[in-house]
Amino acid sequence: MDLKPLLSNIELELQKQVSRLDQPRTKQFHEMLTYHMGWTGEGAGPEATGKRIRPLLVLLCASASGGEWQSALPAAAAVELVHNFSLVHDDIQDNSPKRRGRDTAWVKWGAPMAINVGDALFVLSNQAMIDLKEKYPADIVVQAAEILHNTCLELTRGQFLDMSYEERKDLTAEDYWPMISGKTAALLTACCHIGALLGRADNDKQEAYRSFGHYLGLAFQVQDDILGIWGNEAVTGKSAASDLVEGKNSLPVLIGLGKKKKFAERWAQGPIKPEEVEELARTLASEGGYGEAKEASIQMTDMAINSLREADSENEAGEALFELTNKLLNREQ
Amino acid sequence: MDLKPLLSNIELELQKQVSRLDQPRTKQFHEMLTYHMGWTGEGAGPEATGKRIRPLLVLLCASASGGEWQSALPAAAAVELVHNFSLVHDDIQDNSPKRRGRDTAWVKWGAPMAINVGDALFVLSNQAMIDLKEKYPADIVVQAAEILHNTCLELTRGQFLDMSYEERKDLTAEDYWPMISGKTAALLTACCHIGALLGRADNDKQEAYRSFGHYLGLAFQVQDDILGIWGNEAVTGKSAASDLVEGKNSLPVLIGLGKKKKFAERWAQGPIKPEEVEELARTLASEGGYGEAKEASIQMTDMAINSLREADSENEAGEALFELTNKLLNREQ
Repeated sequence: MDLKPLLSNIELELQKQVSRLDQPRTKQFHEMLTYHMGWTGEGAGPEATGKRIRPLLVLLCASASGGEWQSALPAAAAVELVHNFSLVHDDIQDNSPKRRGRDTAWVKWGAPMAINVGDALFVLSNQAMIDLKEKYPADIVVQAAEILHNTCLELTRGQFLDMSYEERKDLTAEDYWPMISGKTAALLTACCHIGALLGRADNDKQEAYRSFGHYLGLAFQVQDDILGIWGNEAVTGKSAASDLVEGKNSLPVLIGLGKKKKFAERWAQGPIKPEEVEELARTLASEGGYGEAKEASIQMTDMAINSLREADSENEAGEALFELTNKLLNREQ
Repeated sequence: MDLKPLLSNIELELQKQVSRLDQPRTKQFHEMLTYHMGWTGEGAGPEATGKRIRPLLVLLCASASGGEWQSALPAAAAVELVHNFSLVHDDIQDNSPKRRGRDTAWVKWGAPMAINVGDALFVLSNQAMIDLKEKYPADIVVQAAEILHNTCLELTRGQFLDMSYEERKDLTAEDYWPMISGKTAALLTACCHIGALLGRADNDKQEAYRSFGHYLGLAFQVQDDILGIWGNEAVTGKSAASDLVEGKNSLPVLIGLGKKKKFAERWAQGPIKPEEVEELARTLASEGGYGEAKEASIQMTDMAINSLREADSENEAGEALFELTNKLLNREQ
């Protein structure tokens, strides 16, 4: 299946939704959003927009379960707007100066304005979802909105855990899953669930797509954690071991801490310096941090693929979902 | 009409909605919200919760147009949660250390956590609105949600204008209305509109309630601006002329600037010191700032009352709306 028409329509739908702010007196506000979305300003372009994986999942799941992807576009925009709302607020919360190689919103306009940019993206997401009413009966619109709202609560819970964990030194691998379930997997779960709902899949099928999204999200995050320590810098575009320097509670780190060996000893002594990273990454790998995380990633990937098989879609959108999964989980960046 | 049962049910509904966060691992997060809502922590109690005017308007308008206020409780909670979401983010944006005499969320837990507290309140508002589906058909739920979402976009636009205006020195009274329409009047408009919708008022009546909410909001804000300069400190609980010291672009100030006389001259020279306030407030009054703002307030109040008459409700909830309007607009605090 050629994904290009889907991707270009996602972009058009997003632009349409964001254009609600393109009004007299708030042109500059509108520009802040179009900058963050990657459409305008320095460095604008495909590199700056991100991969639009979430809206793509909505459309593919809708199509794979027998619907027309075109009708699901407002929901696709809604999930991507939620994702971007959380990115804008994350960047303020984490004090991150760069996002996809460009200055973050708070760096350009200050935190107060950036908080408002995030809030507006969230509002636009709500409005986009309501636009489904043009193509679907009201009870389906309410169901789709409810799925996304419930997911957003998980996002805020995941964000709370993530911020709370920063100060904690007693975390184990068991604390990892609730956090990433909220932070990463919840939204991917919602994308697949909403897609299946809009494709008019029955309850069992909806559950299979949900489950696919959930494990895809978990596998994706574990993969990201592995690349964050042992990734190829030239490919990922960020310093491979920056997660160690940043003190991120990623899965390999939590596994290493559970071993209470050399890695845990060094971690407890305070921030890691860039020059220590190479050896410490080796230590962590030798203590099982790499292997066990890789194993978890493979296990989650298998679960994702099995759920997708259960969804039993035989059309080209279903095939595209398998392809997308393989591409995402075998990625080097 | 006795408002106590409405107020106590509003509180119960709000607590029910916020309790969605009362789950394992996020108890502390839940506590941040219950603190902000005025239910827990130092200084908790009626003084800390605010007056719940917005949810009260929803219930009264629903009842005045012939519905049962009990059924509208989730919508009442939704608007109050939106209001509180905007307060939490406002306090971060304005760097305000106190809210209703208590430390603000960002002072207690830092800005990153407080951003997330605001986000969660916003999510809970969305979830509350969906709860209407227990009592109303899905198309009414979608309409109510759409009204609130559209209003939220106005809130972010108003917030943008407010923050942009802080740096501008060339504002006139004409810039005032678009800003407060978004910041204050939009949400009150939505409360009355949603209430009328849920009371099953016809389109003309809905429009009358909308219009009532709009002018009530404008009158309320102008009144607030007047009290912010010439209010009785003992009654309002905040330093009467603090708006002058804070450099707030309130209506009397913008009127004064338009006169290009002594007040405008002093304003252009930089921040006002507390010891200058008394005389400057007198200067502003003598140049028309008080009288013209008061006139605008009376005009808006008249428009509100006229719209309420058009809504033509003859039951006790309708009477309560007249009483509430008079109480709000003749208030000294």
